[in-house]
Amino acid sequence: MSNNLEGNEEEAVLVKSILLQVDAEKALLSRAADYLGYLSLLGVERAGSGHPGLPLGCSLLGAFLYRYALATPPAKSRNLSAGGLEEQAFNVKGKASKEVEAFISAHQEALYDLLRDRFVLSAGHGSMLLYGLNYLFSRGMKLQDIENFRQLGYKSPGHPEYNPKDFIETTTGPLGQGFANAVGMAIEQNMLMARLPAQKWFYPASVFTLLGDGCMMEGVSYEAASLAGHLGLENLVAIYDSNSISIDGRTNLTFTENVAQRFKAMGWQVYFANGRDIASLQETFLQLRVVAEEKGMGRPKLIIMKTVIGEGLLNLRDTAKAHGSPAGLAEIAYFLKNSALAPILLSGGAEAPAVVEKHMKDGKFPAREEVFNEDFLKTCPAEKIFKHRWQRLVSALEKSPQAMADLATLLSEYSPGATSSQEKQQAFRKDIFAYSLGHARKAESTRKVSSEVLQLASKTFPNLIAGSADLVASTLTKVASKDEAMYISRENFQPANIAFGIREHAMAAIGNGLALGARFIPLTSTFLVFSDYMRPAIRLAALMQLKQLFVFTHDSFFLGEDGPTHQPVEHCNALRLIPNLLVFRPANEAETAFAYLYFFEHEEPASLLLTRQKLGEAVFWHSCYANRELAYESFQKGAYILEESKGNENSEASAEAKTDIVLVASGSELTVLSEVKKRLESHGFLVRLVSMPCVELLHKSGESYQQALFLTEQRVPVYFLEAAAQSQLNLFYKDNVFVKGFQRFGESAKAIALQKHFLFDAASVYDDIMNRVLVLR
Amino acid sequence: MSNNLEGNEEEAVLVKSILLQVDAEKALLSRAADYLGYLSLLGVERAGSGHPGLPLGCSLLGAFLYRYALATPPAKSRNLSAGGLEEQAFNVKGKASKEVEAFISAHQEALYDLLRDRFVLSAGHGSMLLYGLNYLFSRGMKLQDIENFRQLGYKSPGHPEYNPKDFIETTTGPLGQGFANAVGMAIEQNMLMARLPAQKWFYPASVFTLLGDGCMMEGVSYEAASLAGHLGLENLVAIYDSNSISIDGRTNLTFTENVAQRFKAMGWQVYFANGRDIASLQETFLQLRVVAEEKGMGRPKLIIMKTVIGEGLLNLRDTAKAHGSPAGLAEIAYFLKNSALAPILLSGGAEAPAVVEKHMKDGKFPAREEVFNEDFLKTCPAEKIFKHRWQRLVSALEKSPQAMADLATLLSEYSPGATSSQEKQQAFRKDIFAYSLGHARKAESTRKVSSEVLQLASKTFPNLIAGSADLVASTLTKVASKDEAMYISRENFQPANIAFGIREHAMAAIGNGLALGARFIPLTSTFLVFSDYMRPAIRLAALMQLKQLFVFTHDSFFLGEDGPTHQPVEHCNALRLIPNLLVFRPANEAETAFAYLYFFEHEEPASLLLTRQKLGEAVFWHSCYANRELAYESFQKGAYILEESKGNENSEASAEAKTDIVLVASGSELTVLSEVKKRLESHGFLVRLVSMPCVELLHKSGESYQQALFLTEQRVPVYFLEAAAQSQLNLFYKDNVFVKGFQRFGESAKAIALQKHFLFDAASVYDDIMNRVLVLR
Repeated sequence: MSNNLEGNEEEAVLVKSILLQVDAEKALLSRAADYLGYLSLLGVERAGSGHPGLPLGCSLLGAFLYRYALATPPAKSRNLSAGGLEEQAFNVKGKASKEVEAFISAHQEALYDLLRDRFVLSAGHGSMLLYGLNYLFSRGMKLQDIENFRQLGYKSPGHPEYNPKDFIETTTGPLGQGFANAVGMAIEQNMLMARLPAQKWFYPASVFTLLGDGCMMEGVSYEAASLAGHLGLENLVAIYDSNSISIDGRTNLTFTENVAQRFKAMGWQVYFANGRDIASLQETFLQLRVVAEEKGMGRPKLIIMKTVIGEGLLNLRDTAKAHGSPAGLAEIAYFLKNSALAPILLSGGAEAPAVVEKHMKDGKFPAREEVFNEDFLKTCPAEKIFKHRWQRLVSALEKSPQAMADLATLLSEYSPGATSSQEKQQAFRKDIFAYSLGHARKAESTRKVSSEVLQLASKTFPNLIAGSADLVASTLTKVASKDEAMYISRENFQPANIAFGIREHAMAAIGNGLALGARFIPLTSTFLVFSDYMRPAIRLAALMQLKQLFVFTHDSFFLGEDGPTHQPVEHCNALRLIPNLLVFRPANEAETAFAYLYFFEHEEPASLLLTRQKLGEAVFWHSCYANRELAYESFQKGAYILEESKGNENSEASAEAKTDIVLVASGSELTVLSEVKKRLESHGFLVRLVSMPCVELLHKSGESYQQALFLTEQRVPVYFLEAAAQSQLNLFYKDNVFVKGFQRFGESAKAIALQKHFLFDAASVYDDIMNRVLVLR
Repeated sequence: MSNNLEGNEEEAVLVKSILLQVDAEKALLSRAADYLGYLSLLGVERAGSGHPGLPLGCSLLGAFLYRYALATPPAKSRNLSAGGLEEQAFNVKGKASKEVEAFISAHQEALYDLLRDRFVLSAGHGSMLLYGLNYLFSRGMKLQDIENFRQLGYKSPGHPEYNPKDFIETTTGPLGQGFANAVGMAIEQNMLMARLPAQKWFYPASVFTLLGDGCMMEGVSYEAASLAGHLGLENLVAIYDSNSISIDGRTNLTFTENVAQRFKAMGWQVYFANGRDIASLQETFLQLRVVAEEKGMGRPKLIIMKTVIGEGLLNLRDTAKAHGSPAGLAEIAYFLKNSALAPILLSGGAEAPAVVEKHMKDGKFPAREEVFNEDFLKTCPAEKIFKHRWQRLVSALEKSPQAMADLATLLSEYSPGATSSQEKQQAFRKDIFAYSLGHARKAESTRKVSSEVLQLASKTFPNLIAGSADLVASTLTKVASKDEAMYISRENFQPANIAFGIREHAMAAIGNGLALGARFIPLTSTFLVFSDYMRPAIRLAALMQLKQLFVFTHDSFFLGEDGPTHQPVEHCNALRLIPNLLVFRPANEAETAFAYLYFFEHEEPASLLLTRQKLGEAVFWHSCYANRELAYESFQKGAYILEESKGNENSEASAEAKTDIVLVASGSELTVLSEVKKRLESHGFLVRLVSMPCVELLHKSGESYQQALFLTEQRVPVYFLEAAAQSQLNLFYKDNVFVKGFQRFGESAKAIALQKHFLFDAASVYDDIMNRVLVLR
């Protein structure tokens, strides 16, 4: 897959020389591991909760990885306290041409971010290991954060929370998610390389991820691993902390598969290591590169690393009890006494229990400077790997103006911030305002509109990457490809579409991985009913506020014959319940286009609920969208007046005085209510018809807007129609709000038959209104 | 694993002889396959939608399986039209002792159900294959159902819907679910065998399941397959329809793993077959038994069956277009002309297009009797396998009174209906009414109460099977085991606990598989936040109304330091939105016990949302539960008065007149409101405190009950507190209903700190009420 072998091979030579330095630092490395372990024990103990087991088992790997393998920019550039780490190497002032100097100075952060490796702690409960590493290696974590693990106001929550500035690459904890995010990050690097086709200096940075038995057993990790193997992501290195213990006991209670064989079957290269043995880690990391040169091309890598949970403890070692509870003072003292820290922290004959007690009582943990000298803290061999990449970059820029031009294009299209460029947003807004479904004025489904708007979007945003869980023929979410190939493959990462396979959960989690870098904008799609398969990852997108668009088609029983297993009922409101997630259910051409526009103009996740079926023309091509700018303003309120009955339509005051009923719907039901309105009008009622494409935005519009819209003070009855389960709390609705939702499972039949059967046709809705709300005049 | 080798070996000999009969029936079998294909084409065409691709590719396998492999009771016993299928063999009248005759006559249906094999069409979109098979083999499907595929009022919905009387073993469509259900069914058979330890006549019946690429790629199928391999379920036979096509194109777009190697890694025995070749199927099915005898012990079986999607079509064959759309009349005519049906249906020189057109126009499809003679329709070799089991049973009963006694016990504890036995329910009710948390009057968490009630339940219901996704140490859902071992294993299916591993999705789906037989009552548990991983399977439990109890602990931000990734927010109401699912959120000891009681007294799925944290004593041990019977009556209303302020507590009329505010909460927030009530009372307000453990039951209680409870007509303000996201539709709440929910993500800190931070402490809630609802007197 890699077309840039040269740089990779050069780097391999360098990495070997770095890995050979380990021999001289074995004692320091052991001490670093024990320091990380000790901090974890103290942190968890002081918090009164947490997970010391993994940090103790994986501390050696952690220290090894950060010190010898993880290519990172110098710490000083991040304004960290340790400072002074060879920063001069990155200062091109006076050493490069004016053009190169200017270019680098303008893009330094983006370039750093482009070239650096990433480490994802998929087993998020081991957060103290990550915090300890980031503190010891001067990457955005302070000792106070460690001392105040799991407390409000510190950077050390129970599970890692996305904070890229401080090298917390993603939020983890729900098992399997971080691993799938890492797959997305590895894809991102390959897609970037494909967008610099003639640039031999660039090759994909590595993504390391640490996962435990939990991540391994989750279905989402299987899905992601299968796709990673298919795509041959050789820059992905997964390290499996195989400690043979899970919460309920030894893993052989329930997990006896041959993991190595399974990963080989999925196209992975598999390595073994002893996580408690420096020489073994050294050997394995050397092999990673050897194999990469010789025969490992196009295979993601799995290191099966044997460890012992709670390593270094007396009674808890190798037991499930070490996993998720404080170890207790006696165990901590035992650990300290037998650790490589003893000569330092117990110097002068101090007793371990007393020292531990003092650390706990003061809430002051030993600082890194107490344990390591300046040399150790101020140098990090792995940074040389990064420097190598940097130098190749600088030299390429010097040699070739074309390289600089290409890179400038890449950075403008695919840099953090490219997703929110004002210029692009304005261009897209213009396109959306000019857009109208090309063909004759015949109403369509909203999924069809979506497919057209998507093409517009991809024109302006080449970083839009669309994918589907094997339903693109139905969701219509394929971006036109400039490349011959339609989908990315191990040979070609140029296309802007990903065939995720029937792997909804991994699709959403890999989408998160793509979105984390903020260079690509992922759009993932399936049927709304299968959003259930994706919820854990959708939730994390919302929690991290990642710009991912979830497109869900076939959004109600109106999909028809596929029946109750495919007809969403609870899904619309179940999505609305997720904090910080926008849920758009557009009713027509304009609203669908506006939903896309809103998504691209903001930095948050959104979901789009679209119809399978064609909608009614009256609503689909409504005159109220003639002025698109005004209409978009209304749309952004979340709900707005589509129509007023004649006689009050031009006077707000009189409308309020006269309106008999406010009808409200989202999506396809707006078509129904539009017909109902006519029936009511024919009986002399004055009706306000409200479209409500986005409840979240309506909330933001505030109470006075809502009250004016629904004529609350005038106590005008409000009738709300939506083919979706409504909150069970409807029992609180008062006498002038009426809801017709759908609180049952669907059936298999033609949509038109179901509409009558479920009383969602205009005649039945009219009858319902006349029975429950109004009295015939 | 099997301790009953003898019967299995005898059966193997029989199966071989049956499989050798295939040679004489090859032409008939081909005709059967083509008949199934033709019916599928016609059915989908007439419906205007559906999936002909799989039925065409797998029709030969289907016919082969039903005719030669699937052990089923004679069709006549199901009162089907074909009738007369060797029924006399099962009639023991006059051939057995009076005791045996009486026993069999009393239990015939249950015994049939115990001994029969099952076929699960996991790839549910191929429903027409299943319907065609059940029609051709006289198993509960009529020609009219086939002719009216996907229409209201027929037994042929778009995807199969659970209907065990008609041999639709489970609802499928959402991919991967049926496969996991089949794993549950295979476990069930092994658990039944373990409960008949001395009964050599019984050995587990087979569960066959057909899955496609979709099921294969889904994470849930990996989870279930990994556990199946771990448990060595040799009675499970999965047939993988490997047609190399999925909806978006050829599977090599995205799915290139070595499936055989992966399944071997998980402990499966793997076979290969050509699904278009009778001899190959024959050979493979012979191997299934050979290997079972020689070396396949303790391995589930996977047949990788190469097929061609849309087999028999001209242009659509081997294309994704054959998957999910009508083939069109021309293709159907081409199929017919080249099929083994041609000599029959086109006899006398009829033209295929004209015949197809006639079938379509009349809506009358060719009946099985037109295509097959009576001999074929009235005999089914596979029934001999069933007869073999039956005869072993009868003979064992004759020989050993102990066998009969043991079987009687088994049937009383583990027969369909045992889950709803009145006697047991009454015994359990008595236990629950007598139950009180054993230790001192110190308030506990509701998960702790649950763990005690669970022991009571398992005493009365030995068919209660508890399992957790590696969180039993936290969810406390372990049933005390009579066996030495705590969890089932490949060596021992006696225990009543299943260690599901960190496989939430498969856990719920396997739970469904267990519940489908109605012999066992599965209880599955994890943290509430991870209910997201299980939703597709929870939805199917609700759709099928399966008696599974989902226990979710750590039910709000009150779980504390694990932080937002572990703190549920949207989950409580997202569960309430699922139709036909009860959601209990008990507030104390009594309500937790009552929730269990309610679950065992009804035949529907329920979820139980429990606290991690200890609750306040005032609510935990409330005097209103002194009369448990009365209290349970209140509980069953879904919401009820826990307390009234003094001065109106004994007079309903005066309460209505005087009450200043109604406070309502579920679960842990009831403790908070109880404190708030005191504060309000100290300022002279009269307060009604309502506990609302189950919104669904409150709905059922009807409007007049609700209005009386909430004093709606008196327009008393109602204040509702719940640490969960409330519906976004709250904007409709009128001026005298006030909701304090939790519409954001949580944070990592101690529960007590979060309670204040999020303004959920009594002082903050009191302030909120005084600001928004009441005015200080």
